[in-house]
Parts: sequence; C-alpha cells; structure tokens
Amino acid sequence: MAINIILAGPRGRMGYEAVQMITNEESFRLVACLDHKHDGLTLGELEQFRDDLQVPIYTDFDTCLKQHQADVFVDLTIPEVGYKHTKTALQYKVRPVVGTTGFTDEQLSELKELAKEQKRGCIIAPNFAIGAILMMKFSKMAAKYFPDVEIIEKHHDQKLDAPSGTAKKTAELIQDVRESKKQGHPNEEETLPGARGADMNGMRIHSMRLPGLVAHQEVIFGGAGQTLTISHDSMNRASFMDGIKECVNQVMDLEELVYGLENLL
Amino acid sequence: MAINIILAGPRGRMGYEAVQMITNEESFRLVACLDHKHDGLTLGELEQFRDDLQVPIYTDFDTCLKQHQADVFVDLTIPEVGYKHTKTALQYKVRPVVGTTGFTDEQLSELKELAKEQKRGCIIAPNFAIGAILMMKFSKMAAKYFPDVEIIEKHHDQKLDAPSGTAKKTAELIQDVRESKKQGHPNEEETLPGARGADMNGMRIHSMRLPGLVAHQEVIFGGAGQTLTISHDSMNRASFMDGIKECVNQVMDLEELVYGLENLL
Amino acid sequence: MAINIILAGPRGRMGYEAVQMITNEESFRLVACLDHKHDGLTLGELEQFRDDLQVPIYTDFDTCLKQHQADVFVDLTIPEVGYKHTKTALQYKVRPVVGTTGFTDEQLSELKELAKEQKRGCIIAPNFAIGAILMMKFSKMAAKYFPDVEIIEKHHDQKLDAPSGTAKKTAELIQDVRESKKQGHPNEEETLPGARGADMNGMRIHSMRLPGLVAHQEVIFGGAGQTLTISHDSMNRASFMDGIKECVNQVMDLEELVYGLENLL
Amino acid sequence: MAINIILAGPRGRMGYEAVQMITNEESFRLVACLDHKHDGLTLGELEQFRDDLQVPIYTDFDTCLKQHQADVFVDLTIPEVGYKHTKTALQYKVRPVVGTTGFTDEQLSELKELAKEQKRGCIIAPNFAIGAILMMKFSKMAAKYFPDVEIIEKHHDQKLDAPSGTAKKTAELIQDVRESKKQGHPNEEETLPGARGADMNGMRIHSMRLPGLVAHQEVIFGGAGQTLTISHDSMNRASFMDGIKECVNQVMDLEELVYGLENLL
Repeated sequence: MAINIILAGPRGRMGYEAVQMITNEESFRLVACLDHKHDGLTLGELEQFRDDLQVPIYTDFDTCLKQHQADVFVDLTIPEVGYKHTKTALQYKVRPVVGTTGFTDEQLSELKELAKEQKRGCIIAPNFAIGAILMMKFSKMAAKYFPDVEIIEKHHDQKLDAPSGTAKKTAELIQDVRESKKQGHPNEEETLPGARGADMNGMRIHSMRLPGLVAHQEVIFGGAGQTLTISHDSMNRASFMDGIKECVNQVMDLEELVYGLENLL
Repeated sequence: MAINIILAGPRGRMGYEAVQMITNEESFRLVACLDHKHDGLTLGELEQFRDDLQVPIYTDFDTCLKQHQADVFVDLTIPEVGYKHTKTALQYKVRPVVGTTGFTDEQLSELKELAKEQKRGCIIAPNFAIGAILMMKFSKMAAKYFPDVEIIEKHHDQKLDAPSGTAKKTAELIQDVRESKKQGHPNEEETLPGARGADMNGMRIHSMRLPGLVAHQEVIFGGAGQTLTISHDSMNRASFMDGIKECVNQVMDLEELVYGLENLL
Repeated sequence: MAINIILAGPRGRMGYEAVQMITNEESFRLVACLDHKHDGLTLGELEQFRDDLQVPIYTDFDTCLKQHQADVFVDLTIPEVGYKHTKTALQYKVRPVVGTTGFTDEQLSELKELAKEQKRGCIIAPNFAIGAILMMKFSKMAAKYFPDVEIIEKHHDQKLDAPSGTAKKTAELIQDVRESKKQGHPNEEETLPGARGADMNGMRIHSMRLPGLVAHQEVIFGGAGQTLTISHDSMNRASFMDGIKECVNQVMDLEELVYGLENLL
Repeated sequence: MAINIILAGPRGRMGYEAVQMITNEESFRLVACLDHKHDGLTLGELEQFRDDLQVPIYTDFDTCLKQHQADVFVDLTIPEVGYKHTKTALQYKVRPVVGTTGFTDEQLSELKELAKEQKRGCIIAPNFAIGAILMMKFSKMAAKYFPDVEIIEKHHDQKLDAPSGTAKKTAELIQDVRESKKQGHPNEEETLPGARGADMNGMRIHSMRLPGLVAHQEVIFGGAGQTLTISHDSMNRASFMDGIKECVNQVMDLEELVYGLENLL
C-alpha cells in the first residue's frame, strides 16, 4: 500500500526536487502541498511544474489535514514555520519528516513528548545526504582506532565560510571518541602561516575553494604504515532525495522522535 | 600490570616487526619465543636482533610454557604448526592471538570448544591491518543504502593474482547485504573487452598493477547526485602491528574464540 | 576592441551555454545567430533566452554574412552543415571556430587550403574542455619517462560505451611515445575474468559506471618508488566554454587551420 | 658501449641506492668510488655491500681520476665538497651529475664557464624524482589556463617544516605564469583560523601530517565546470634512481651545464 504524503515548501529548491522524487516513487503518493500562497490551486497550475500534477495546494495546515488522510508530512520550509507545522502534524497523528534546522532545545523536548504521547514517529534531520551521514558515522567509528586524523573539505569558490559545517560536525563527532592529542611533530613549524590548517583540539581541518568544485570532503586517518580515507562527493541536491525517501519509509515504523539521520542508519 | 607474551616465529618478516612492537610497548613484556631452531639461545644472540634482547628461545612449546607464566601467545608461523600451537596454548590456559590462516572448519570447531572449556579468549585473524578491516566493515554497512558499488584495488606489478584477496572478501561482505543487481546501463557495450572489469554478481572489480604502487583499495558507492568512497592504503608490514596490539589487549577480556578482527572492532 | 561573433546553433545545449558565455564576456560581441528556423526573429523572442537579447537570427548564412561584419564564426551544429558553414565563413574572410566533429580527410584538406588562401585562422576542435586536453597532453609527455601506465575513467551509469572516447584517445597519444610493453607480472592471472581491464598494447584501461558520477578520468604512471597521476573531473557543459573562449581569442592571430585544441595549448 | 661511472658518497642513503642501481644497469659500469674514508678498500669489503663488489675506494679524487678512465662522475655528497668535486671532475673532462644542493651563484657561474671550456656536460639537480619534476612542469603549464589553483601536500608526521620545499617550489613556478589573483570568495571568512591554508600571492597551500603517509602532493586547478589535478606520490628513495639514470644518459650528449632536471625533461 502506498504511503500518503503531504509536502510543505514545494516551490523551494529542495521542495521542487522532492516533488519529483515523491511523484516518481511507486510506493509514495503526494496527496497535498502546504504553501504560504497559491491556496486552492494545484501544482500543475504553477509554472515550474508539469501540467498534469493535480496535487492541491493549501495555505492553512488544519484545513489540509482535515481534507486529506496522510501518513507522513514532509517539511522543507524554514525553522520559524517548521516547528509549528511539526507540532500540528503530530496532533493530527501524521508522522513528520523535517529537513529544517534551528529548532531550540525547548521546542525539541516538546515535540519529543508529543510524539511519544501520540505514538507517532517523527524525524528531524539537518542533513539528508545519506553519504555524508555515513561518512560522519564511519569517521567516528574509525577514530577509536586511529587517533591521528585530518579533514580536507573542498567547495566551489562562492562559499563564504571555512571550514564547512559538515567538516566541523565531523570533527566534533570524532572528538567524542578520540583521545585528545596534538598531532604532527612537536617541533613542527609553519614557514607560511596557516599551512597546517585550522586546529580543533589537535586535529587539523583544511578548506579548499575553487571553481569547478561542488561539495567534497575527505577524512584521512593515519596509523603506522597505513591510511584509511572516507570521502564524500556531492554533485547536486539530488543527493538529499535518497535520504528523504529513507526517512519517509522509516518514520512509518517509529513511535518516537529521532533527531539526525545518523541515528537511523 | 604488563601483559606477558610468548611469540612464535620471531625470525619471519611479520615476527621480526612483532618483536620490535612488543618490546617497545610499555604495557607488554616479551617473556619467551618459540622457534623451530636456536633452542637455548636468546634473541640477542641472533644476528638480526639487537644484542641486549635477552629473550629465551625454545623449540619445545611445552617446556616453554612450563618455564614461563604467560598471559598471551602470539603465533605468526604457518597453518601446519599454528593449529597445534594454538591448542597447546589453550591447554595451558594461555590466550592465543593467531595470524596464520588456513585452519580447517574442524580445527576451528575444536579450538572453539576448547577455548570455552578453558574460559580463555582466543583470536584467529587472517588480516591484522585495522584499516583494511574497517574498510570492509564500513563497505558492508554502506552497501545497505547504496546498492551501486565498484571496487578498484591497486598493487605493485609483482602481484600474481587479480583481483586481490581483500577485494574479493570485500565484495563477498557487500553481497551479504546488497540486493542483487546488474549495474551500469542495461545496454552498455565494451568496445575493448575487459574495460568494465570483473563481474561479481553485478558488482564490478578493477585491478591496477604498476611499479611504485604498494597495496591500495577504493570502494566507491554511487547514489543519485553523490558518491561515498572508502579507501585503504597500506605502505608496509608496520600496518599489521596496530592490529596485533589491539588483539593482545582485547583477548585478555574474552572467554571464547573470535574469528576475524572485524568481529572485535 | 570587441571581437564580433556569429554563432550557429544557439538553441542546442552547447549553443545555449555559448550564448551566455559570449554575451557575458566584455571583449566579445554576439552580432548574429544562424539557425535552421526562426529567421527574422531575435534570440530574445525565443522562449529559452532572456527578453533583452536583441541578436538577430538568420537561416541563410550568406544573407547573415552580408549584413554583419564579423571577426569570428562559432559553429556548434552537426557535421553535415558544419562543413558547409566553415567553407562559407572562410570565403567571407570570417574565422571559424568549429566544435562539430566528423569531417572527412578530404573536407579537412579543402578547408586547410582555403584558410591559407584567405589568410584567415580556422580552428576545428572535437573537444573544448581545456582540462581534458591538458590531461592528454601531459599524459603523452609523461609516458616518455614512465612506460608503465593505466587509465581509469569513471562515468554515470547511463553511459553506453566503455571505455570512453577520451580514454581511448589518451591511450593512443601515449602509444605514440611509449615503448611497446606488456605491463604487470608476466605470470599474472585473472581469477575473475576482466579484473585487469581492457588491454591496449599492454596498457590497461578500466571503466567505472555509477550513479552520482559525472565524467572523470585518471591516468596513473608508475615508476620505481613513485607514481604520477593526472586527473580530470568534468561536472557539466560549462567546462567547454573556457575552451571556446580560448579559441575565439587565438583564432584572431592565426592565418591557417589548426585541428585540435591540443595544438594551441 | 657501457658508460663508466665514478660515484662519490657510496655509503650515504642515496649513495647506497645508487650503487645498486648502477651495478644493476647493463649499460653502466661503476669503476670507482670516492669516500672520505676506507681508501684502498673495495665496496665488497665494507659491511653493508655484498662481498663480490670489487669497486675500489679512493679518498683522493685526483688519484682516482688518474687511475680510472671515467665518462661520468655522480656526486651524492654534501655542498661543501660537492663544489670541489664537480670542478675537479670537469678539469679531467669527466661529466658531473650532481645531486647536492646549496651551491652559491658564484660557484654555479664558475662551473658553467668551466663546462663550456671543457666542452663537457654537467648536470646539477636538487631533485632527482622525475615524477615530482614533471608535476611541477605540468603545473606551470596548466596555470596559464587555470589561474585558480590550490596545493595540498601530505607527509609523515615526523616532518618539521610546513609547507614542504616542493610545494613552495611548485607555487613559485606557477606564479611565474599565473596572473596575480586573490582566490576564493572576496568575503570569505575563516571561522577557525588557518582553515584556508597558507596564502602565497592569493594561491593557497595546505600541509597534512599523519603517520602512514610518506611524501605526496596534489596540485588542483579549478575552472568553470571542471578541475584538473596533478599529483605525485613518493614511497621511498628508489624514486630518485630513475632520475639519476636519466641524467647519466643525457649528460653524455651535453656540452654545457644544465641546472635542474626540469630543463632536461
């Protein structure tokens, strides 16, 4: 039997890809969309979608939930509305899969409680790229045996911050299990400042920025006579869709809130 | 308190490295060696070791075990004698860590039984390179989410067999979890035979052989818009020593036989 | 002073990118387009271009050349018409930069002769990706010192042929300078057929196909104690635009026909 | 006919490898060695060489050159004596191949003059690894077309300086042809200092240090939609022998001093 889905944020860049994914997947059915405009229209009536997409759009979530029996609610909007949507969905016993970030600890506790009461699964995932999640998970596992590790992340030259959020997150996860240690030779010297990269508790992180790159990261572990490397290359947003698919399937079997895809894989 | 170790095969290439590792490790103590010659001499009296290594050599294992109270027995010899050594060690309630391969199923069952009876740990590991073991472990985990995968292994050009044992082992592990699938385009065509590599249930394995290479493997998983790569580079036998060290430490806490380092990490 | 350009094939995938590149480049001016339909319209009147692109479209090349003083003619159409266009452009003393392939030897000789007579540059380039061209050029140079070489090319799993055209071309260039040699151990054995890849005069070529890959190639040279690797990663058609730009600039200084971007870099 | 060679510094680490290489090469003949001790002995009489190496050792170079007709003199000593050796060799019309560095400009001028007068080739090469030399040469060539470039060099964690000499040399060669340019986004921000690596005229250099690494460098060029990567991996000193071999062969055909292997390849 197909899983009936309501999607919030169909016109965003992620949302657009999600519409394609859900409507292409045989076991999924897109029953309605939530948007802050275009109430009463269908997706097919909007310019960017193909004409035959007869999925109704709602601006009011309660109305939407009353009209449509849904199993899962996928939210690809922004934190401000994401929290309210998630809460409402759970109240209607619809399982949320939420890609927005920035929830406060309080909001998370409240949603956790609510999911438990309603006995409904709820997944909140700041990152849907399964490959990136596995890279982080494996890195944490490897750090137990290889305390010497450096990260190099490579992105297009329009990126503003260095290191990337994923690199920092990876380093934090490694720190949880790695015995603290200053790497490199105790007397090593930078003849050009910055050569050894950013220092994060003795680990080093390097950020490369070049046109032609998209989003890449390598985590390199070194031991006597060997290195182990875990790397992830992301080409485009399609990489998030496999993660959303996985979440929609898994949320059906949950009866509580899970934060982070890493706790499901 | 230090762990007292008896080592079999100190003059082999692995054994030689193991002598260095054990004697350099603060928490380990090399109390005796087992060898098929040089009975009554010490390691220091042999040409290849440094003069001050006053570790006695025995050709008879019973005599050795009666003379020295040991916690762990490390065997880096050959299968024919490895089995007998392992059995004898367990009978003396000394925990074996065995790097030789080629035990029969019968021998393994017998040793398993014996370890249980004696309530002593026993580790038999065909491969001590922790990095390679983790690469295989992670590959098996990733295959659950990424059924499309190819392996490329790269070795020096004196290697006789292709693909390598590690590549085949990795592919087998992946097969355990991967839904069977013929990869690539259904109509793909090799205009030069062999271009697409070896086929193992729809997965592809490629073997590169060049001077200047040592022992390397990449396992590449592909999904929509992303790839995840796990790779291991081995430079020399030093890469096995971390694995032996790990086993010596872990065998102390076991009360049964474990086959394969992958079941300990 | 700006270089005035006529472009043939503006509605193709390459042509579309070329329109963006030419109109964004300060030193270039797109004065007209040649198309097999839409005569009399402007690019801005076609759906896919932005409205303010007031570049006139012609279906007849002679009319176009009489109306517009052009320095360079960029042809991104198909071989059948590409030859005629190139000839006509030279007759009007306009320098062709041609990305179509498949010219016969006779046609090339004739165009070569004509370019000389008219004292006008003409560039015919089957591949505009400067990175790929340099990879091939460097590979040819390196092969003189490193006769042991293997190629691995990686593409998305919708690609039909293996190995790729670029891999074959690279191997051919290497062959021109490499002393013939069967690589690998003389007694090496494939325990799974195809593991060692395709054999091209003793060199080996491996083709990987996975979702998530785009178009990648590595050429790996091995010598005693070292390897040298030249690799190219192509993400999208934007990679061809730098090559077209380079050709437009260089063709201005030529007085003859040059075949292949590799002879200009 | 074989090339007769005198080698200075046979007991050093490079010298030891050179003895093996020269005596294994059919077209080379090692006629004598220069050393600061062991005058009158043969290599075979020293502990580290195999017994049958009947190559006489001299401490006085003039005596050596008078006794032995040599074509080429290979110097693998230190700068202080290297200069004198080179001069003496040229005076005897023997062609020097010198691996020591640190000659002053004056010394180089003088040797240059002398080589010309004597009509004898002379090669002074700070780096004999052909792969590293080609990496630098190709990088300089590529930088003309791809002004956006970053270097990442990776070494074992016993290395003291960062970046490596080769990385700096590569950056300098690139600078010779690259239009000056600050790379990355104009507003990019390091949230952890050092993440973006060392800045060398707008180019970025990153230094990784881990156990298990040996000596590796990648030069990555980025353009619209593509990257071109040139990388060199060095495993051990054997990598220098191919370069010495090449120099011995090429110096026979020279009649002047050449500085740097890059000017011969």
